[in-house]
Amino acid sequence: MNPATEAVPNVTESVRYARGWEKLREIDGKAGENVIAALADIAPDFARLLIEFAFGDIYSRPQLDLKSREIGVVAALTALGNAAPQLKVHIHAALNVGCTQEEVVEIIMQMAVYAGFPAALNSLFAAKEVFAERGRAER
Amino acid sequence: MNPATEAVPNVTESVRYARGWEKLREIDGKAGENVIAALADIAPDFARLLIEFAFGDIYSRPQLDLKSREIGVVAALTALGNAAPQLKVHIHAALNVGCTQEEVVEIIMQMAVYAGFPAALNSLFAAKEVFAERGRAER
Amino acid sequence: MNPATEAVPNVTESVRYARGWEKLREIDGKAGENVIAALADIAPDFARLLIEFAFGDIYSRPQLDLKSREIGVVAALTALGNAAPQLKVHIHAALNVGCTQEEVVEIIMQMAVYAGFPAALNSLFAAKEVFAERGRAER
Amino acid sequence: MNPATEAVPNVTESVRYARGWEKLREIDGKAGENVIAALADIAPDFARLLIEFAFGDIYSRPQLDLKSREIGVVAALTALGNAAPQLKVHIHAALNVGCTQEEVVEIIMQMAVYAGFPAALNSLFAAKEVFAERGRAER
Amino acid sequence: MNPATEAVPNVTESVRYARGWEKLREIDGKAGENVIAALADIAPDFARLLIEFAFGDIYSRPQLDLKSREIGVVAALTALGNAAPQLKVHIHAALNVGCTQEEVVEIIMQMAVYAGFPAALNSLFAAKEVFAERGRAER
Amino acid sequence: MNPATEAVPNVTESVRYARGWEKLREIDGKAGENVIAALADIAPDFARLLIEFAFGDIYSRPQLDLKSREIGVVAALTALGNAAPQLKVHIHAALNVGCTQEEVVEIIMQMAVYAGFPAALNSLFAAKEVFAERGRAER
Repeated sequence: MNPATEAVPNVTESVRYARGWEKLREIDGKAGENVIAALADIAPDFARLLIEFAFGDIYSRPQLDLKSREIGVVAALTALGNAAPQLKVHIHAALNVGCTQEEVVEIIMQMAVYAGFPAALNSLFAAKEVFAERGRAER
Repeated sequence: MNPATEAVPNVTESVRYARGWEKLREIDGKAGENVIAALADIAPDFARLLIEFAFGDIYSRPQLDLKSREIGVVAALTALGNAAPQLKVHIHAALNVGCTQEEVVEIIMQMAVYAGFPAALNSLFAAKEVFAERGRAER
Repeated sequence: MNPATEAVPNVTESVRYARGWEKLREIDGKAGENVIAALADIAPDFARLLIEFAFGDIYSRPQLDLKSREIGVVAALTALGNAAPQLKVHIHAALNVGCTQEEVVEIIMQMAVYAGFPAALNSLFAAKEVFAERGRAER
Repeated sequence: MNPATEAVPNVTESVRYARGWEKLREIDGKAGENVIAALADIAPDFARLLIEFAFGDIYSRPQLDLKSREIGVVAALTALGNAAPQLKVHIHAALNVGCTQEEVVEIIMQMAVYAGFPAALNSLFAAKEVFAERGRAER
Repeated sequence: MNPATEAVPNVTESVRYARGWEKLREIDGKAGENVIAALADIAPDFARLLIEFAFGDIYSRPQLDLKSREIGVVAALTALGNAAPQLKVHIHAALNVGCTQEEVVEIIMQMAVYAGFPAALNSLFAAKEVFAERGRAER
Repeated sequence: MNPATEAVPNVTESVRYARGWEKLREIDGKAGENVIAALADIAPDFARLLIEFAFGDIYSRPQLDLKSREIGVVAALTALGNAAPQLKVHIHAALNVGCTQEEVVEIIMQMAVYAGFPAALNSLFAAKEVFAERGRAER
């Protein structure tokens, strides 16, 4: 890396980081913070890039509302079917940004058409766990 | 199969079919009809099941608005990355039910976070083709 | 939804449901019933659609014998590698409809050629669990 | 590599190769030979391993009939949805070893349940092309 | 977005962009520039994020040499099997940063073990095209 | 199978097996042996084919060094995201053949660009477990 590059004070970086961290907390709440904490002793730079890029750059863009973004993410992770922990984080996130439980169930059901019934079933059972966790937390 | 089953007049079937066909036309327009037509000489029963189940049963449910459904489908097909023709049909569909081009681009961009940049790039280029087709059609 | 649609008595629906339920029990036995029961408090409509569409519409068709259908499903779920619970249900199902354990092992082994050794290995270990469960049940 | 290893005459290798080549021709016919020919100038060793392992080792095993093997392969490649050329080769293969066109269509339709409608649709259109090619060849 | 955020001059951003652009050209050459150009009229912001994040943040890190990075990318895109244009760009890239054609063929062949023969075959045929393109360019 | 085929003494087979077994132990150590042992009562032939083909045929080829091979495998299994046990075996393997922990983390981080952040996150957490296991073993 160019030493000149390194000498530039990371002013904007810290702005992206701060904006991303705020957005992460707004969307994912405690679950998002836990992911970042779990990365601290294995890949702290990756935690920083996740905050800066995913949350500071992408989620902060005004072109699409957060509810639509989370419907898309729940749909995609349901269809991919290989990222169970992240699917649960984003079912929480969808509820955090204004989706109802009924809407979350519905977008998962629709994925049966595009990715098959097993993908939808496994995601529905993840949603069942998330709804139960939130039910316990609300009491 | 039980002959008794066969003897039941397909009253409700025809209702599901009619409801599904209407919904298919509302969402997918001509592109949806073309898919059905292309199935006629290879698997006409599959065309019927697609209309009855996907459109008559799932898309007709009132629990989620069509715009949210299509955002979820564009996100999922972008992430899966292995169904180019259907992705294009659903980018059209998203625009048909009220998404702006900017919103379509945005949900695809977000998939870079969840399924990688190649998946997002290929979907953006599909969107570019769809937007061009519609631009030509509108002139 | 058109109120007229709703007024049609669900005669055929109940036939599809009954036919599907019977087929589900024939193929998946207790494991299939458990899936339906687990959906009751999260997405009961999805359970109904699964019975009506997957079992009432598809599995009930006479064009292919159940043994061939289950060989195809075990092969596909092995290759996809992201639906472990459904894979186990369908290894049971394959044995229920007439496959030998040796045939199940063989179709899974063949998937090493089409989806790689990890996919085949994980499916073989699922088969090992299923065979053990059935061994215990038979005693 | 151990020089001793290299000194062993490849007696059994040539047996595996011959057995695999014969099996490849039985199953895939001309389409299989074309794949091998296309590898000659890029990865001839890979062509040899494909013949020896996939056809000499796996397909030659007596534990499962060829028709069941091809039903499994068509199902798996339909579900994966990312290997169009191989899917067409194996739709040909399924027909070569005794499946009817109706059975091929049926196992593909069933994949809508396990991998979604887009996967099944794209595979049905591949089948349509294969059936047309064979129709022309038979005339 | 916080107006304060917007007021910060994009000093570091432009450094990340410049570093990324330089890295993109080093690795992907003309093919990389073409991808960026193709995004100009559909999603210019995505082109910027691709340069800044993928190339400015990730590829610029000194923790792994470029040759190892490209071996990993060719392996991954071969295994995923759903991103043909990007696979070709990265076969070029692997050769640009010091892999031999023999090494590229070898890492692709190895993917037969982890993702099946169809994935490896399609990637070998992509490599064949890339090698031919470069052969023509060199003359 | 041709009886003549069966009569050929398995001289070369046993050479491939011996070479593969030695290579398996060199790369995967105890973890590889455990996989083979776990196959003994369900599919012993599959264990043999895995040793002969994957290790005796592929890994024994001199065209690519073992460190590059394992970087490719860790990248591919991270991207596929559906083979957690094999991913852990190959993170061990990468370290066994000369990768540093930092290099393993880095190739996984890079997969965020090609397969998304969830795939990279889950693989980083697998690496964390592997590093901890080795830390305990070294004490």
